Amino acid sequence: MIRIAVDAMGGDRAPRAPLAGAILALSELGDGDVVQLVGRPDVIEATVDDLLATDFAGHAVDRSRLPIVAASDVIAMAEKPTVALRSKPDSSMRVGLKLQADGGSDAFVSAGNTGAQMALSVLTLRLHDGLGRPAIAAIFPSARRPVVVLDAGANVDCSPAELVQFARLGSVYAEDILRRERPAVGLLSIGEEPEKGNAAVKDAHQLLAAAAGLHFIGNVEGRDLPLGEASGHDLDVVVCDGFTGNVLLKFYEGIAPFLIGLVADRAGHDPRALAAQLKELDYAEYGGAPLLGVRGVSIIAHGRSDARAVKNAILVAKRAVEAEMDVHIGRRLAVGASAA
Amino acid sequence: MIRIAVDAMGGDRAPRAPLAGAILALSELGDGDVVQLVGRPDVIEATVDDLLATDFAGHAVDRSRLPIVAASDVIAMAEKPTVALRSKPDSSMRVGLKLQADGGSDAFVSAGNTGAQMALSVLTLRLHDGLGRPAIAAIFPSARRPVVVLDAGANVDCSPAELVQFARLGSVYAEDILRRERPAVGLLSIGEEPEKGNAAVKDAHQLLAAAAGLHFIGNVEGRDLPLGEASGHDLDVVVCDGFTGNVLLKFYEGIAPFLIGLVADRAGHDPRALAAQLKELDYAEYGGAPLLGVRGVSIIAHGRSDARAVKNAILVAKRAVEAEMDVHIGRRLAVGASAA
Repeated sequence: MIRIAVDAMGGDRAPRAPLAGAILALSELGDGDVVQLVGRPDVIEATVDDLLATDFAGHAVDRSRLPIVAASDVIAMAEKPTVALRSKPDSSMRVGLKLQADGGSDAFVSAGNTGAQMALSVLTLRLHDGLGRPAIAAIFPSARRPVVVLDAGANVDCSPAELVQFARLGSVYAEDILRRERPAVGLLSIGEEPEKGNAAVKDAHQLLAAAAGLHFIGNVEGRDLPLGEASGHDLDVVVCDGFTGNVLLKFYEGIAPFLIGLVADRAGHDPRALAAQLKELDYAEYGGAPLLGVRGVSIIAHGRSDARAVKNAILVAKRAVEAEMDVHIGRRLAVGASAA
Repeated sequence: MIRIAVDAMGGDRAPRAPLAGAILALSELGDGDVVQLVGRPDVIEATVDDLLATDFAGHAVDRSRLPIVAASDVIAMAEKPTVALRSKPDSSMRVGLKLQADGGSDAFVSAGNTGAQMALSVLTLRLHDGLGRPAIAAIFPSARRPVVVLDAGANVDCSPAELVQFARLGSVYAEDILRRERPAVGLLSIGEEPEKGNAAVKDAHQLLAAAAGLHFIGNVEGRDLPLGEASGHDLDVVVCDGFTGNVLLKFYEGIAPFLIGLVADRAGHDPRALAAQLKELDYAEYGGAPLLGVRGVSIIAHGRSDARAVKNAILVAKRAVEAEMDVHIGRRLAVGASAA
């Protein structure tokens, strides 16, 4: 039995989207699995009642698989994480994560304030040994298979050693969530040659080339990401600092609608209809990004998540639990530490 | 009379593409303007003869406006710039740039080895006072107007002060080449708030906010670039370190064909026909990227440049000369220095 806690109060479309996502997920989870709804009980009760009477009218929904976990505080999307942590001890985020730390839940999913989720995940679940910060893994659709890019924003200034940790974390993610064997890891740089790049990247290249237990294929460039391949390998993982990764991720989010709009305009298509045909570009397909490095499972869903995105984030959580991703990460980091 | 030197030997399609580009440019330049063809005379003569007999058969081409400047060495595309500089004193690049330094030419255009062009431009033309390195300005098509992004790869590790210099250089480029008034400058970061970003970006934000003679609109994010606007302003210039800029530029080069291919596949279009309808995404439209900060005009064209791309690079060179971009850059940097 898997127990996944969902932040009912987090996200631009909360509480409706997370709760609808939880209901949607039930039919794709195992019969005994439950989705724990964390937040203000009155709001959750009323919203679920309404969803069952409207969007899910006529669906057989087993409400015993949707237990409510009470939390009185709500962290707003724009709130400063440090302030939220101090002033809201009973937030849905903290309660959901605490439940996991105490053994009452297996995973946590939120579309809420990312900074607060990161800080609370670290505080509550704690980090694996040897890590200074967690990393956010983002999925980039490509012409081949989706590519894991990390860090996508948790760490802005990264040391070469941290970039190597990202390679380990991303490899486990690719194995456990994307089911890749011996994932190929590229280091994002401005040229294939090992001597190309900024200071941290040049040093990281040397460390990665010597690292045990990694399938490092060398530097990759910006253009290799959309291709999904480099140096004759299908790309699985691309490592970069969180500044570059975050800029790229947001650039991708902006460039896709721009290009689709341009094509629609020129070729006489309806842009919405065209976008609907391009499911692989829809972040909702990928559900959520695991916060890698914490002892447990904390899935960051996009703030704009609709019900389908939340449902998919819950399924990512399920896969992480089933695959024992957390155990594998601990093991992989220990290999790195013993080799260092 | 404007005299623009073109590297006949540089680029993946040299000598044919640069020479065809030079011929094409003649009709768009002033009657007295000349394009100086720099390279091996025998190769240039034979190629121009062939072009006039084939692609340009029947065109009235005034060969006296295409003087040949002899240079015996050719720097290969993949050659190490440091090696090329030492072992090839009579390269077409060095000869073309030297001609300008000696007053015999007004601008230089090459689709050849970018690293060598940068190094030789600095060595031959020299830098404006106060600059440690030049910057490459790239044009990013956007949903509004094209945006100048710099640095796009000349400087990998950048100090906050260098990011401010890029803002000055990019502003002059936007004024003189793109004819923007009071160009709006954004600083690429991972959030709008001044305290978001890596260490260099956070410090640069403070410097830019206090800088005289700049229209700084604050931090911009990756998604603002394709939109072409941020905080209610149309974006003209986006400043970033050369690592991030180069990764983004190459990512853009890769993502456009990927997305166009995806749309073509899904909507049943021929991808080539579709791409041909999207001229604003074609780097050839923008011709070339000025190497900013050198005392003179050195235009870097894409290695893959065809005749049209080279022609457009020549027209960018013409505009830079006519607008006296070099003089304006000197003046703008002096304002920065006196204010500092």
